Amino acid sequence: MAASTSIVKRLLVGRPFRSDRLGRELLPKRLALPIFASDPLSSVTYATQEILLILSLGGLAFFHLAPWVAAAVVVLLVVVVLSYRQVVQAYPSGGGSYEVASKNLGRSAGLVVAGALLVDYIMTVAVSVAAGVDNIISAIPALNAYRIPLNIGFIVVLTTLNLRGVRESGRAFAIPTYLFVAGVLLMIVVGFAQTLAGSAPVAESAGWSIQPEEVGLSGLVLVFLVLRAFSSGCTALTGAEAISNGVPAFRKPKGLNAARTMTAMGVLSIVMFSGITVLAMISQVRVAENTCDLIGFTGNCQTDPQRTVIAQIAAAVFGGGNSVLFYYLQGTAALILILAANTAFNGFPLLASILAQDRYLPRQLHTRGDRLAFSNGIIALAAIAGVLIYVFDGSTTRLIQLYIVGVFTSFTLCQIGMVRHWNRELGNADSRAQRRRIQRGRIINAFGACFTGLVLIVVLLTKFTHGAYLVVIAIPLLYLLMRAIHRHYQQVHDELSPDEPSSLLPSRVHALVLVSTLHKPTLRALAFARATRPDSLTAITINIDDAETRELQRQWDEYGIKVPLKVLESPYREITRPVLRYIKHVRGENPRDIVFVYVPEYVVGRWWENVLHNQSALRLKARLRFEPGVMVASVPWQLRASRGRELRRPRNLPGDVRRGISPPGQQEPR
Amino acid sequence: MAASTSIVKRLLVGRPFRSDRLGRELLPKRLALPIFASDPLSSVTYATQEILLILSLGGLAFFHLAPWVAAAVVVLLVVVVLSYRQVVQAYPSGGGSYEVASKNLGRSAGLVVAGALLVDYIMTVAVSVAAGVDNIISAIPALNAYRIPLNIGFIVVLTTLNLRGVRESGRAFAIPTYLFVAGVLLMIVVGFAQTLAGSAPVAESAGWSIQPEEVGLSGLVLVFLVLRAFSSGCTALTGAEAISNGVPAFRKPKGLNAARTMTAMGVLSIVMFSGITVLAMISQVRVAENTCDLIGFTGNCQTDPQRTVIAQIAAAVFGGGNSVLFYYLQGTAALILILAANTAFNGFPLLASILAQDRYLPRQLHTRGDRLAFSNGIIALAAIAGVLIYVFDGSTTRLIQLYIVGVFTSFTLCQIGMVRHWNRELGNADSRAQRRRIQRGRIINAFGACFTGLVLIVVLLTKFTHGAYLVVIAIPLLYLLMRAIHRHYQQVHDELSPDEPSSLLPSRVHALVLVSTLHKPTLRALAFARATRPDSLTAITINIDDAETRELQRQWDEYGIKVPLKVLESPYREITRPVLRYIKHVRGENPRDIVFVYVPEYVVGRWWENVLHNQSALRLKARLRFEPGVMVASVPWQLRASRGRELRRPRNLPGDVRRGISPPGQQEPR
Repeated sequence: MAASTSIVKRLLVGRPFRSDRLGRELLPKRLALPIFASDPLSSVTYATQEILLILSLGGLAFFHLAPWVAAAVVVLLVVVVLSYRQVVQAYPSGGGSYEVASKNLGRSAGLVVAGALLVDYIMTVAVSVAAGVDNIISAIPALNAYRIPLNIGFIVVLTTLNLRGVRESGRAFAIPTYLFVAGVLLMIVVGFAQTLAGSAPVAESAGWSIQPEEVGLSGLVLVFLVLRAFSSGCTALTGAEAISNGVPAFRKPKGLNAARTMTAMGVLSIVMFSGITVLAMISQVRVAENTCDLIGFTGNCQTDPQRTVIAQIAAAVFGGGNSVLFYYLQGTAALILILAANTAFNGFPLLASILAQDRYLPRQLHTRGDRLAFSNGIIALAAIAGVLIYVFDGSTTRLIQLYIVGVFTSFTLCQIGMVRHWNRELGNADSRAQRRRIQRGRIINAFGACFTGLVLIVVLLTKFTHGAYLVVIAIPLLYLLMRAIHRHYQQVHDELSPDEPSSLLPSRVHALVLVSTLHKPTLRALAFARATRPDSLTAITINIDDAETRELQRQWDEYGIKVPLKVLESPYREITRPVLRYIKHVRGENPRDIVFVYVPEYVVGRWWENVLHNQSALRLKARLRFEPGVMVASVPWQLRASRGRELRRPRNLPGDVRRGISPPGQQEPR
Repeated sequence: MAASTSIVKRLLVGRPFRSDRLGRELLPKRLALPIFASDPLSSVTYATQEILLILSLGGLAFFHLAPWVAAAVVVLLVVVVLSYRQVVQAYPSGGGSYEVASKNLGRSAGLVVAGALLVDYIMTVAVSVAAGVDNIISAIPALNAYRIPLNIGFIVVLTTLNLRGVRESGRAFAIPTYLFVAGVLLMIVVGFAQTLAGSAPVAESAGWSIQPEEVGLSGLVLVFLVLRAFSSGCTALTGAEAISNGVPAFRKPKGLNAARTMTAMGVLSIVMFSGITVLAMISQVRVAENTCDLIGFTGNCQTDPQRTVIAQIAAAVFGGGNSVLFYYLQGTAALILILAANTAFNGFPLLASILAQDRYLPRQLHTRGDRLAFSNGIIALAAIAGVLIYVFDGSTTRLIQLYIVGVFTSFTLCQIGMVRHWNRELGNADSRAQRRRIQRGRIINAFGACFTGLVLIVVLLTKFTHGAYLVVIAIPLLYLLMRAIHRHYQQVHDELSPDEPSSLLPSRVHALVLVSTLHKPTLRALAFARATRPDSLTAITINIDDAETRELQRQWDEYGIKVPLKVLESPYREITRPVLRYIKHVRGENPRDIVFVYVPEYVVGRWWENVLHNQSALRLKARLRFEPGVMVASVPWQLRASRGRELRRPRNLPGDVRRGISPPGQQEPR
C-alpha cells in the first residue's frame, strides 16, 4: 500500500528536487510588476461591481453615487500606495506588515497581523477563484451549472502546480498580467473614444430597472449604505502589500525599485478602476445583489447568473458578446484572477513557515516537501479555501464580505508600526535632510494609519452582520492558537534543555524479553538481548492459558535455553498490567536502574494480514512509553512475504550515485 | 482519552472477572430443557404464519393445504429429533454438527458446517429479535413506528448483557420458557374446548378475503408453491441442534439425559406447532405476504402491520385484545424469542473461538474479555445481525428466507457424518446387541440424511431467488476465508518454528543514536546506548538545514560529548533514506552484525499535542521494521505534563493484594 501511494504521489508531484536548487533569481522591475501585482490589479475586475451591487439595494436612484464612492476608494489607494512605499524602503527584507508590526509594536501586534494575513491569503484564493469562474461563466453561460466543480477544479490545479514547485518568479507568469492590463486599457480608450464620438457604449442591461430592497432611504441609513458600498469598493486594495513581501526578489537598489514598482502598480490600479467605473456609468450597467430585483432580466432569476460588470462593459464596447476582443478580455480577466490566487499559494505557506520557525504554528509547516515547496501549508490553504467556496456556493459577493477586515487590520497595524519606526529613527538621525525625510515619512504613515484605521472601523460596522463577523472570530482564535502553540513549544524546550554538560550512566541494565511462543523471532530477540550484555536477562511470559504456558515451559527446557523464563500470572487475561508490575519490581528502589524490554515481532507481507495477529504488543509498547527508566526495543523478524514490500523511492535518483555507498544488497542475518 | 474510554467501558461492561471464575455448573434436565430449547421452541411462534403467508400467494383457496404442509414439517421434526438423539449420545463433548462433520467427513465438510452454523447464529439473532418485536407490536400497535429502533435496541441490550458475561446457564433463563410453553398449551386446550363446546374461536381476520398474487395455479407451479410453504414451515426446526452443543452441561449420564431432553423438546415442539396450526385453521386466521392483498384489512395497508398469527389466535381464544391472558401470551412469546436470540450470543462466539483456536478465524476471537465472555465474537455477531435487520427493515418474513439454508446444510452434513460414524463403529462392535444398536442408529441417521438433504434441495430451489442466494454466496465465501486464514497462520508458523535448538549470537553490535537537537532525551538515549556496551557507538543527525546542523555541532563540542556525531546529508530533505543507507553501510558485509537504532522520544501530555511534533521518527521506525538485522529502541522522555496520564485500571482490584509486589511508587530516573 505504501508503495502504491508513493507512485500516486510521484505522478502528481513529480520527482523530488535537491535542496541546493533553492535560490532566487533577481527580477527587473518590468517582471516584478506583473508578478507581484497580479493580485492587486486583478481586484479591479470586481471592485466596481461590488460598489454597484450594494448601491442597488436602494434601487437605481443611488447608482449616481457610484463615482463618488469610487473616488473615495481611489484616494484610499493613493494613501496606501504612498504608505507602503515607505514600508518597502524601510524594511527591504520582505517581512512586510508582519515584520513591521512585530518589530515596532511587539509580539502580540505581530501575531494579530499574522492571523489577519493568513485569513487574507485564504480569502484571496477563495475570492479570486470565484471571481475568475464568474468571468468565465459570463463569457460561456452554459458553464453556470458547473460553478462549484469549476471552482474546486481550479483550486486542485493550483494546488498540484504549487506542490510540484511552480515558482512565483516564473517569467511565464508575467505575460497574462500585461495581456490583461493591455485589454482593460484598450477597452477604456475605445469606450471613451466611442463616447466622445457620440456613440457611447450601451450595456445589455441599460434598459433594465431595479426593484429596491430598501425604499425611501435617507439620513443615517443612506450614509450607512454609501459607507457599505465604499467598504465593498475597498476590495480594489486587496493584495496591495504583495510587493512589500517581494522586496528581496528585486534588483538593487531593492527598496527604491520596489517603491517605484509600487507606484506603477498604484497608477495602473487607479486608471483601470476609475476607467471601468466611469464606463459602467456611461454604458448604464445594471446589476443587483438579488437577481430577481432586476426588472427586465431575461432568463430565470432564481438560477441564471448576472453577467459581471466588466463583461457587460466589454460586450458593450467591443460590440456584442461575439467579438474576439470580448473573449480576450474575459479570458485574461479569468487568467489574472487565477494568477492572483496563485500568489496566495506562494504567500500563505511562506508566512506559515516563518511562523512555524518562530514556533507559533506546528513545526510541520516549516519543512519543504519533495519539490522544495512548503507542501503542508499549500494543502492546508487549498483545503480551507475549498471549503469556503463550497459553503458559500462559489459566490464572489458573499465571499468578499469576509475579505476586507483582514486586509485593513494588517494595513492599520503596519502603518502604526511605521509611525513608531520613524519616531525611533528620528532619534538617530544626523543630518537635517535626513530628519526632514523621516518626518515626511512619519506624516504619510500617520495619515495612512488614521485613514486605514477609519476604513477598518467602517468595514467592521457595515459588513459585520454580512459575514465579516466570521473573520472577527477567526483572527483572535488564530491569535490565541498561535500563542498556545508557542507556549507549548517553549515549555517543552525549557523542560528538555540539558542542565549539566553530561548525563549520568545508568547503574544497572535489566533486559526483559517478552515471550509468547518459542519461535524464531523469540530466539532472535534473546540473542540480540544477550549481545547487549545486560546485568540481568530474563524472559517473561504472561500466563493466560495454563495449557499453553505449560507447553512453552516444556519447549523452553527441550531447547535448553539458558535464559530463565519467568511466568507472570494474569488472572484478568491482560498483558500490560502484569508486565508493568514486574518492571517496577525489577527496577526496585534504584532510580538509576534501567529496564530494556525486548519485544519480538514479525512483519507480515500484506497490511490486512495484521488483522490476523494480536495487537497486544502494540498496546504494551504504547503504555511503556509513559514509564520512566524503561526502554522498548522491537526486534522484527521479516517474514518472507514481507521482503520487497517496504516503501521504496524510485531508483536511479541523482542522489544515489553521488553518495559513494554501495547500493543495498540482499543481506540476511543468520 | 484512554482513561475516559476506560471509564465508559467499565460502566457498560462492569469490573473484570478472574479467569478461575470460569467453570460450569451441571444442569438437571428440568433446567437444561428450557435453557437449551428456548431457540427451537420459540420458532413455533412464526412457523405456522410463514406457511400461511406463502399459501396466501395463491389466495384463500390454498389455505386448506396448510395442515398437510404442517404435517410434513412434523414428520421432519420427528426425524431430526431422532437423528440428533443419536448425535448427543455418540458425541457428548458438545461439538455438535461441526465436530461430527469434521471427524467423519474431514476438514472441508467441517468448515462448511462451521460456515453454515455461523450464518445460522447470525440469522437466529436477526429473525428472533424481529419476530419478538413483531409480537410486541401485535400487542401494542402504536409501537409500529419504532420497529427498527426497537430491534436495534434489543440487540444492544443483548450485546451489553453478554459482554457483561451473562451465562447461558443462568437459572433465571429457565422461567420464561416454561411460562411461554404453559401459555401456548393453555391456549390450545382452551381453544379446543371452545371448539368442542360449539363456540369455536373466530379470528379478527376471519371475514377477510385474499386477493391472490398468482391466479389459477395448477400442476408443477402448485407443487412448487406447496414446497415453498413447506420450506418456510421448516423454520420450526431451527435451533433443534442447540441441545447437541450443550451436552457437557448435563448431569450424568450426559448422553442419555441429553437424548431424553431432546425427546421432550421434540414432543413439546410438535404439540405446540400442531396445536397452533389447527387453531389457526379453526379460527380462520387470514394473513398475506402483501398486506394490501388482504380484502377487509382495516387501516392503511401500506404502513400498518398485520397482527401475527399467534396474536390473532390468542385474541380469538382469550377473548379480544384486552384480556390479561392475551398480553401474557404475547409477552412470553416476545420474551422467549429474545431469549432464543440470546442463545446465539452464546453459541456464535463459542464456535468462533473454537475456530480461532484451530486457526480458521482471527486469533482475537479466541480470547475472553474482561468478563470472561468472548467479547470480539459478541460484537461481531451483534454488528452483522444489526445490519441485516436494518437492511431488511426488520421484516421477519424477508429475513427468514435467509435462515433455513444454513440450518439444513449443517443437518445434512451432520447426518451423513453420523452414518460414517456408525459404519466405523460397526467394525469395532463386539456383541450382537451392540451391532443391532449401531445398525438401528445407522438407519435413523441415513434416513435423516436423506430427508434433510431432500429438504435442503427443496429449500434451495424454492427460496433461492427470495434471498437464500445470499447465504449460498456467504457460506462458500466463509469457507474460502477460513481456509485462507488457516493457510496464512500455517505459513507463519512453519516459517517461524525454530530449526536449531539455539540461535547464534550476533558477532558485533553497532549502536546508532538518532539526534535532531541536543536536549535531555538525546542525552538519555546516549547514556542508555552506552550502558549496553556496544562494539561501536555513533550519534547520527540528518542535515536538512545547514544552520541548524552547525548549531548542533557547536553544542556537541561545547558539552564535550565523547560520542562521535556523524552528519548524514539529505539533499531531498528526508529522514528515512539517508538513515537506511548509513545502516547498510555500517553493517557492511557481515550479515551477523546487528544495528541498534536508538530513537530519543518525548511523551507529551495531551494527545493533540502530538500534532505539534514531527512524526518523522514514527515513519522511520515503521520502515526499519522491514530491515533485517536492525533493532529499534525507543528511549522515551516523559514530559512533566504526561505524568499520570497513562491508561490506568481502577485501583484496589483483588489481584493487586495477592501479588506480593509493593505498589508502584514515584520512581524518577535522575
